[in-house]
Amino acid sequence: MVKSVNVAIIGSGVVGSAFINQLKNLKSSINFNVVYLARSSKEAIFSNDYKPVDLSNYKTSPAQAVLPLGDLIKFLTGASRPTILIDNTSNGDIAAYYPTFIKQGISIATPNKKAFSSDLKTWNEIFESSEAPNGGLVYHEATVGAGLPIIGPLADLVSTGDKVEKIEGIFSGTLSYIFNEFSTTDAGSNTKFSDVVKVAKELGYTEPDPRDDLNGLDVARKVTILARIAGFEVESPTSFPVESLIPKALESVESADEFLSKLPDYDADIQKIKEEALAENKVLRFVGQVDFKNNKVSVEIGKYGFDHPFASLKGSDNVVSIKSERYPNPLVIQGAGAGAEVTAHGVLADALKIAQRIAN
Amino acid sequence: MVKSVNVAIIGSGVVGSAFINQLKNLKSSINFNVVYLARSSKEAIFSNDYKPVDLSNYKTSPAQAVLPLGDLIKFLTGASRPTILIDNTSNGDIAAYYPTFIKQGISIATPNKKAFSSDLKTWNEIFESSEAPNGGLVYHEATVGAGLPIIGPLADLVSTGDKVEKIEGIFSGTLSYIFNEFSTTDAGSNTKFSDVVKVAKELGYTEPDPRDDLNGLDVARKVTILARIAGFEVESPTSFPVESLIPKALESVESADEFLSKLPDYDADIQKIKEEALAENKVLRFVGQVDFKNNKVSVEIGKYGFDHPFASLKGSDNVVSIKSERYPNPLVIQGAGAGAEVTAHGVLADALKIAQRIAN
Ligand SMILES: NC(=O)c1ccc[n+]([C@@H]2O[C@H](COP(=O)([O-])OP(=O)(O)OC[C@H]3O[C@@H](n4cnc5c(N)ncnc54)[C@H](OP(=O)(O)O)[C@@H]3O)[C@@H](O)[C@H]2O)c1
Ligand SMILES: NC(=O)c1ccc[n+]([C@@H]2O[C@H](COP(=O)([O-])OP(=O)(O)OC[C@H]3O[C@@H](n4cnc5c(N)ncnc54)[C@H](OP(=O)(O)O)[C@@H]3O)[C@@H](O)[C@H]2O)c1
Repeated sequence: MVKSVNVAIIGSGVVGSAFINQLKNLKSSINFNVVYLARSSKEAIFSNDYKPVDLSNYKTSPAQAVLPLGDLIKFLTGASRPTILIDNTSNGDIAAYYPTFIKQGISIATPNKKAFSSDLKTWNEIFESSEAPNGGLVYHEATVGAGLPIIGPLADLVSTGDKVEKIEGIFSGTLSYIFNEFSTTDAGSNTKFSDVVKVAKELGYTEPDPRDDLNGLDVARKVTILARIAGFEVESPTSFPVESLIPKALESVESADEFLSKLPDYDADIQKIKEEALAENKVLRFVGQVDFKNNKVSVEIGKYGFDHPFASLKGSDNVVSIKSERYPNPLVIQGAGAGAEVTAHGVLADALKIAQRIAN
Repeated sequence: MVKSVNVAIIGSGVVGSAFINQLKNLKSSINFNVVYLARSSKEAIFSNDYKPVDLSNYKTSPAQAVLPLGDLIKFLTGASRPTILIDNTSNGDIAAYYPTFIKQGISIATPNKKAFSSDLKTWNEIFESSEAPNGGLVYHEATVGAGLPIIGPLADLVSTGDKVEKIEGIFSGTLSYIFNEFSTTDAGSNTKFSDVVKVAKELGYTEPDPRDDLNGLDVARKVTILARIAGFEVESPTSFPVESLIPKALESVESADEFLSKLPDYDADIQKIKEEALAENKVLRFVGQVDFKNNKVSVEIGKYGFDHPFASLKGSDNVVSIKSERYPNPLVIQGAGAGAEVTAHGVLADALKIAQRIAN
């Protein structure tokens, strides 16, 4: 007998549409029965008899208004099969509803950081609900480093009894690119910080307003997640020092364009730090850290020797280094940390793992 | 109600004893009930009523003769709970029995490469039996790179539809150490190959006869496993070119000591290759490769530029680089690829994943 799960997908943006495409082509011994697909924040495809949504023409199929979350739960729990909810949005309201879904036995796979990087109470509620009898499962590999294997391997170390000493990494593709271009081992390079930021924006690597990358908050959210998995009870992503790369005076200028036009005035400050590092044969990188020995969590500019794995990083790659009792010479994982396909595969691999545990 | 699985452990050597210790200290919501523990190839602890083996004094508890494998299967399938077999040996006979265990619904977690790197027929039989209804599950992360997350992430890429283009890596801790010491970016270094081999042996990094590392066969076995997971149907670990580091004339000398005393006579050959590489700003590394574009699997000495991740490898670390459609800039994973604790944690994490799927 073929095993099956029901699947509810919310969101068909950059990641969501890649996810739907990968799911459509999935070869699996488990049958994934998509019973609900919210293709936008307004429209959803579903039928009351749980007939599978046709993934080959979901963009144009007749749709209904999206179900309010309370109704969605009733709809999903009314089916006879176990259900996986795929949240491919960055919506905070959906994230706030995770504990309710989980308590009702609905499992979740998602790249949405919101629920895992807000207050500690939400985190605890999610995982306590999940561990309760009949609680849904929660997998969120793609919330850090997109499809890179980071959360799973870190959780494996912790659950088998290893003692993590330090987690250190470059968790923003945008800031990886900016620092890899700005601070190289080449003493002859004269690249200006403001120029690199400008090019990054032109290439589409930054948010519409680059300050949303430069403020370090996205990195702080990812560090919060890793810290909690390793057992460091971080209260919130604003409860530890986060270095902002936005000059104080430019925090409040109105437009992104005005910000970019004034950024060159502040090049000298960061240039000086770069040259000091270079004099020690080091480069600058924007890193998140969880340091158990010194009881410290931080997001800041760090200096790394030319032969350190962070120094040879390329493009917009992410990297994480985990030092533990078992790995005194750290375990290092690096590769693309953003992008539709890699993120979607992280979510789909999680969905497969859930399905292997709950399908019937 | 607490969920449970039965566990049968074979072997308590270097990896086995670390595994038993980690299992003893495991905090898990699933109860691991060890019903059989073969502490050596002769003695096993078990009782006919499946009373759990006390892991705190297994070294001295009264024991019986190990059960022949056929009897072991009868014993394990006679219990009411699902069972995980942990094979912590390098025994080929046990490996040859995997398909029989799996067909009887017994799941397997193991660091033993034998079954997965012999003929393709055995591989297919194992995974076809596992996919059949009521077949046992098979996890073997620790067969390549010890506890490093390699097999799982590679399988996730493949199962979600990525196309692997090239897998390249350093899969022997011993040969990693030897080449990292022998071939550095330092043009002034005058280290001799034979001296490094001697030191590696003195440090306990090599097999009792270093030729068992230098012949490349252990690497060939690991490459065979990765190739198969990526969908390259390798017939056997001897069905593709494997470069041996043993000079032809020394293959047949009797003792390890005689081999080591004569090895300096051949230093000039490999020294020349190293110097040629250095002239191109490259170092030598002993790598396994699976190259889908060129339809080629190989184990050989490769040259890598100073800024390549393989060039900055330290100690006896392993590294793997996976280039795929989704990761044109490769996904790279590195860290300790041998050692009791890291290997045992790889096996225990697999056992946990199996338990999450089958415990009842
Ligand atoms: N893109 C990456 O490289 C990457 C990497 C790692 C993680 N992630 C994470 O993946 C998630 C999705 O990112 P994305 O780049 O795909 O974003 P996106 O392109 O903006 O897509 C978001 C989708 O969610 C829909 N949506 C929002 N709120 C909804 C609601 N209440 N009900 C139903 N649908 C709703 C949006 O519909 P509307 O168009 O109607 O608003 C849109 O289809 C985010 O959490 C992001 O942080 C992305
Ligand atoms: N050590 C590492 O760093 C590492 C890393 C990756 C993978 N591995 C793999 O892990 C496995 C175990 O390695 P190890 O270093 O722990 O080897 P080991 O120290 O030689 O231990 C092997 C154990 O298995 C027992 N054994 C052998 N045949 C048996 C049989 N037929 N029935 C019951 N017990 C039997 C041995 O008992 P006797 O003493 O009576 O022979 C011994 O207790 C191997 O497959 C190895 O390739 C090891």
